[in-house]
Amino acid sequence: MAEQGMRVEDLDTPCLMVDLDRMERNIREWQAAVSAHGVQLRPHVKTHKVPEIACMQLAAGAGGITVAKVAEAEVFAAGGAQDIFIAYPVIGAQKWQRIAQLARQCTMTVGVDSEVGVRGLSEAAAVAGVQIRVRVEIDSGLNRAGVQPDQAAALCRLIISLPGLQLDGIFGFRSVMFGAAGGRSAAELGREEGELYVAWANQLRAQGIPIQQVSVGSTPTAKYAAAVPGVTEVRPGTYIFGDYMMAELGAVRYEDVALSILCTVVSRPTADKATVDGGSKTFCGDSVPARYNLKGYARAVNMEAYVESMSEEHGVVRLGAGANPQIGERIAFYPIHVCTTVNLSDELVGVRNGKVERVWPILARGKRA
Amino acid sequence: MAEQGMRVEDLDTPCLMVDLDRMERNIREWQAAVSAHGVQLRPHVKTHKVPEIACMQLAAGAGGITVAKVAEAEVFAAGGAQDIFIAYPVIGAQKWQRIAQLARQCTMTVGVDSEVGVRGLSEAAAVAGVQIRVRVEIDSGLNRAGVQPDQAAALCRLIISLPGLQLDGIFGFRSVMFGAAGGRSAAELGREEGELYVAWANQLRAQGIPIQQVSVGSTPTAKYAAAVPGVTEVRPGTYIFGDYMMAELGAVRYEDVALSILCTVVSRPTADKATVDGGSKTFCGDSVPARYNLKGYARAVNMEAYVESMSEEHGVVRLGAGANPQIGERIAFYPIHVCTTVNLSDELVGVRNGKVERVWPILARGKRA
Repeated sequence: MAEQGMRVEDLDTPCLMVDLDRMERNIREWQAAVSAHGVQLRPHVKTHKVPEIACMQLAAGAGGITVAKVAEAEVFAAGGAQDIFIAYPVIGAQKWQRIAQLARQCTMTVGVDSEVGVRGLSEAAAVAGVQIRVRVEIDSGLNRAGVQPDQAAALCRLIISLPGLQLDGIFGFRSVMFGAAGGRSAAELGREEGELYVAWANQLRAQGIPIQQVSVGSTPTAKYAAAVPGVTEVRPGTYIFGDYMMAELGAVRYEDVALSILCTVVSRPTADKATVDGGSKTFCGDSVPARYNLKGYARAVNMEAYVESMSEEHGVVRLGAGANPQIGERIAFYPIHVCTTVNLSDELVGVRNGKVERVWPILARGKRA
Repeated sequence: MAEQGMRVEDLDTPCLMVDLDRMERNIREWQAAVSAHGVQLRPHVKTHKVPEIACMQLAAGAGGITVAKVAEAEVFAAGGAQDIFIAYPVIGAQKWQRIAQLARQCTMTVGVDSEVGVRGLSEAAAVAGVQIRVRVEIDSGLNRAGVQPDQAAALCRLIISLPGLQLDGIFGFRSVMFGAAGGRSAAELGREEGELYVAWANQLRAQGIPIQQVSVGSTPTAKYAAAVPGVTEVRPGTYIFGDYMMAELGAVRYEDVALSILCTVVSRPTADKATVDGGSKTFCGDSVPARYNLKGYARAVNMEAYVESMSEEHGVVRLGAGANPQIGERIAFYPIHVCTTVNLSDELVGVRNGKVERVWPILARGKRA
């Protein structure tokens, strides 16, 4: 395990290193960019899964946090978060009861997209004697969750009619990474995403339904969606660290990518390959490379080399021009998708000037219930 | 969290359920099948990552356990394992020292494929005053680790010349899942794998190098490799639970698949799709479906339905004929690859007759250093 004061050269591998200067700059700059539009930044904390880092985002001006699961909300509430949005259609009696418990200590907002979800949450809130804010998720075409736009009004009316719930607004998601969105720029998509949800909010308002919050946006689209009048909140997560995919998509700059994975070369099977001690238990296996024309699951920071194939503990690295790392040599990589990569690890090692300044246990790792 | 005595209907989701009758039968039957050939079964415990389950395998007759990483060895040594093989080319001064520490309390065998690895391990063993067994990994053509066959003799002679090390044999791996092996049956491949390594062992012996152990085999090939005269040990892991991929490849029978993942339907985006509360943080994202012509990342146990795409917390299930699960309904799935799926979870819930009999924390989850 890493300890404060250690030199980077002495870290055992594989190890997730956070460049603290870059992370702090990302927190500051994104907060400023979103605030400039008078829009609330509610970062999705699934990217780092560390309550203390969420507190840094809140201290910088974030208006609350976003999580996907009740178990994540519990970890961040225990870590000091006061205003939590579960951007997920929560289903299940135990989960509704846990949300109602959380609502005693902090402001809870929950996503809904079904009558089952709305009625269950209402009942749990009423039994516990608490108020829970709800936002209706509207499907932007990803077909994974959310009501169809023409069904939103009926669900909003049901929410208004039931005890324990406060209709707070609508939310959704539409990213360059998904659906029919391929081929257009993040700027176009962000604008389109914002305009789509603002239009849906206005349609609901025209039917007499009070919609306050219009919450959209992921890292590729958030800055552009925030510029759309009527959008009140954006929820990017990845921006805090960035990753190989986001840098290639142009959503962040390489010089802002703040998380890298330090590995050791353990074998040199052929002249053009090196095997490192991190495989699919270290780098996420999200099957993105083919989809986004990337060169592998991770990109070396300081040489032309990519993790091209993985088994659980072996990462087979394709070496490019001039790359000839020897057995025992260390290579740092930018992962293709930082959120799922962080979920595979137990700690984040915060580094500045070549030394370990902070070691954070990833307290919300694996919290998916 | 699951508790002993709970009914399956009351488990929160997502949840990894182990059918204890099936798991116990798998342990018994595979042990008997391998023992029948006079060969040692040294199960790879990365599949379950639970020391108590390793103890069940050892009690059934296993002659030790296999792990991939030093951190796994530490967890299983603390859990009672006396004879551990790290089937991985361990590189790094801290790791060699940790192995030397472990060698004070149990019999340690370590894989090597380089001079760097051999010299480092020797030095750590000599400093600690312990003996460490080593096995030379020979590359069967996967090009991820292992010396080329014609380099094995030189590495063996180096091992013999150095203090602290005992040359124990050779090992390797060649599976239906990898490399140029496609298109042939597991029986053919297992025989070929066994014969290949026995031939290499005999070539080394002919040069005066004492090779005792010839260790090969994974779940698809182990039973067939064990039948090859001269093979002394096989190291399957997945057999204890099986999974969708192994069942489709014919390496296990569906009626023996012992691990399933219970999920809840949280949304019904379209008539032919259901979204469940487990995505890539629950089901491994190993990019196998296309490679093996499978229908998704997981297969429903009791209906015609497959997890076809995933984001972190959403599993989008393609519904087949007759499948029409409602929001709130639970579906159990066989994952495509059980080892990496277990690595994403914190506990295994052992079930018999519809009730929770055991809850095991997955103590070696994430142990990859």
